[in-house]
Amino acid sequence: MGNVTRSLDRSGCEWLQYDYRSALMTPDRPGSFSMWRYRKLLPVADGPVRYPLPIGGTPLLPAPALRKTLGTPRLWIKDETRNPTASNKDRATALVIEDGLRRGMDTITTASTGNAAVATAFGAAAAGMRAVIFVSADCRPEKLALMAQAGAWVFQVRDGYAAAVDLSRAAARSFGWLDRNTGANPLTIEAKKTVAFEVWEQLGRRLPDLMILPVGDGPTLVALDKGFTELVNCGLTTRKPRLIGIQAEHCQPLVRAWQDTPAKPADLDPTATVADGIAVLRPAIGEAALTVTRQSGGAMMAVTDTALLSAVSTLADTAGVNAEPAGAAALAGLNNAIAHGLADPSESVVLLVTGRETKASGEPAEQGRVTLIDTLDQVEHALTESH
Amino acid sequence: MGNVTRSLDRSGCEWLQYDYRSALMTPDRPGSFSMWRYRKLLPVADGPVRYPLPIGGTPLLPAPALRKTLGTPRLWIKDETRNPTASNKDRATALVIEDGLRRGMDTITTASTGNAAVATAFGAAAAGMRAVIFVSADCRPEKLALMAQAGAWVFQVRDGYAAAVDLSRAAARSFGWLDRNTGANPLTIEAKKTVAFEVWEQLGRRLPDLMILPVGDGPTLVALDKGFTELVNCGLTTRKPRLIGIQAEHCQPLVRAWQDTPAKPADLDPTATVADGIAVLRPAIGEAALTVTRQSGGAMMAVTDTALLSAVSTLADTAGVNAEPAGAAALAGLNNAIAHGLADPSESVVLLVTGRETKASGEPAEQGRVTLIDTLDQVEHALTESH
Ligand SMILES: Cc1ncc(COP(=O)(O)O)c(C=O)c1O
Ligand SMILES: Cc1ncc(COP(=O)(O)O)c(C=O)c1O
Repeated sequence: MGNVTRSLDRSGCEWLQYDYRSALMTPDRPGSFSMWRYRKLLPVADGPVRYPLPIGGTPLLPAPALRKTLGTPRLWIKDETRNPTASNKDRATALVIEDGLRRGMDTITTASTGNAAVATAFGAAAAGMRAVIFVSADCRPEKLALMAQAGAWVFQVRDGYAAAVDLSRAAARSFGWLDRNTGANPLTIEAKKTVAFEVWEQLGRRLPDLMILPVGDGPTLVALDKGFTELVNCGLTTRKPRLIGIQAEHCQPLVRAWQDTPAKPADLDPTATVADGIAVLRPAIGEAALTVTRQSGGAMMAVTDTALLSAVSTLADTAGVNAEPAGAAALAGLNNAIAHGLADPSESVVLLVTGRETKASGEPAEQGRVTLIDTLDQVEHALTESH
Repeated sequence: MGNVTRSLDRSGCEWLQYDYRSALMTPDRPGSFSMWRYRKLLPVADGPVRYPLPIGGTPLLPAPALRKTLGTPRLWIKDETRNPTASNKDRATALVIEDGLRRGMDTITTASTGNAAVATAFGAAAAGMRAVIFVSADCRPEKLALMAQAGAWVFQVRDGYAAAVDLSRAAARSFGWLDRNTGANPLTIEAKKTVAFEVWEQLGRRLPDLMILPVGDGPTLVALDKGFTELVNCGLTTRKPRLIGIQAEHCQPLVRAWQDTPAKPADLDPTATVADGIAVLRPAIGEAALTVTRQSGGAMMAVTDTALLSAVSTLADTAGVNAEPAGAAALAGLNNAIAHGLADPSESVVLLVTGRETKASGEPAEQGRVTLIDTLDQVEHALTESH
């Protein structure tokens, strides 16, 4: 596919490789600032892009008032809320669907804590595909309403997010659907690495000293590191940023693993935190996330719900950025990192703001498309019933 | 200011004029696609733009599945939900604040049905200004929560939106604040006209046959026409698109005026429609909106709430665009216009999708900043109290 030359296995996750050289980073169409700009380093063959929504090319904001408040003169916000469904999940969705359109596929499936599902529902609608979504039974009703409004089939899985992932992956295998499960499909990593390329270009072909970001399943962090590594491999930079990954205090499996201390039940309760986007008990590519964090010289840190909510407010009232709690985690993490001597206020820091809460207006496109299930048979039944 | 040469009065609204020539439409910085691209036709003096959020440069979507469903092969969606606070109000906010920053002003005020207020609250936060917002007492609580989250002062006015406009304008005069009231400040028109320039560029320096859009106070429509007229005056096109303005059945003062039939009470109940964004009883520049609609060969049409909600769903599930009811009005209007022979499915049509509902997460930045008032004294009192 495209310029991909081979694929490695890295901590259980497929790792596409290219024949790295600086020419691969020359933009596809110089004028356009979107994810497809970096097509030569994406697994997409030649020919027009079919995915109809512009993706990526999100702003890197200087945030003058926030810089002043925090005393961090070289702080930037990479604002992923400016994607079509207001989160970084739109990148992975777009690349997976582009690939599916080229292979003539008509159904895409994913499990999700919420945002990837919303991105998939709207992306599939735009591309004329059917979306079949698996979520935990406690997924927020507002997110369910959005998926339903975009005409997706939504299955609530009683046994939670991990079971939803298993069912979605099994459905993809059994029914031959496009599998957009994060970390499982290597295209999700390929798409999300473009954030690294954009930051590098937006800083004038330089990288920051430090990048801070929320971590759920791990792909956002692992992909960012892959992007930075590819810039090194292309000979365009020599030093990669430190990465600090942030989890919510109530669901911090990777922080506990990082500290090598056993997690108590109170550290592993995905329903207890306001940061539903990153409330993942068994991160899909957690090992890989820990490894690249360590290699970068960074850290994994936990933040409280209070700190998350306060970060939401600070982003709104000093930077004009509207983020959901998981999306604002990087700012909460920065305060923590400075307090613990893991970040220096004078270094150049990029906060990755990954998502904003969106809202459905009006009714779902079709009634009766949100169903509580336990097994794959029930999925097949629901989909066949509808004909 | 900038290249402005004089100002005319047009139906009570100030109309900035330039010394029109094609050179004014050459982009300021060729690579960047944002509102500031058209700076030579904006009232902004030279020097760096200070407003810190990127604005405009929103996508023009081909919407393949929607085209197929409607049988309209040359349909486009101009997606203004991709602005920072998800509505076209961000354009006016940015230009007014840019002007204020250059003049050293520290407070901005506006009245609003909701979206202009949210845009002003977040824009002021990003720029380090204080926002003082006046809304009708029945403004949706979710929108109030957003304004509060961005640290704005919000005054709910018992007598409704018209009284809120009067108070905001009076406050601007009395306290020397920046007045962002739509239609009142000519910069709101100047900013919104850039949508016309973008559509022209995005269609390959051509204009569509028809453009359909929601109408509340009138500036969106009037500004669009001003943009098209300026393209004609610059010698870049000869023919302007027809404009069809859409109002909600329950609040359709301009449709009744257009038809020259008296409005019944049921036609004038701003609280009765789901399209709160365009529920304006006495449109600020309604006369100008009617005039330019007539001159364009277009029309004003009303749509039902049912049609608005159905348009919301259709935009979501066949175009992947998440719009609020007022924001989806153009699609409801297209169906109506085709049914009434006012639009031909084969012509090139651009639907202006003006806004998406957004959501606050977490708490307001400061408590106690939403106050119910009747008079300007109460405003002064509330603001002084806080020190
Ligand atoms: C808002 C938000 N931030 C961050 C993440 C974490 O991303 P990842 O699962 O790639 O670690 C998610 C994942 O769902 C999210 O929704
Ligand atoms: C979503 C939405 N669409 C359209 C409009 C109408 O714009 P105007 O008042 O410029 O006519 C508004 C105004 O508030 C709005 O919020």
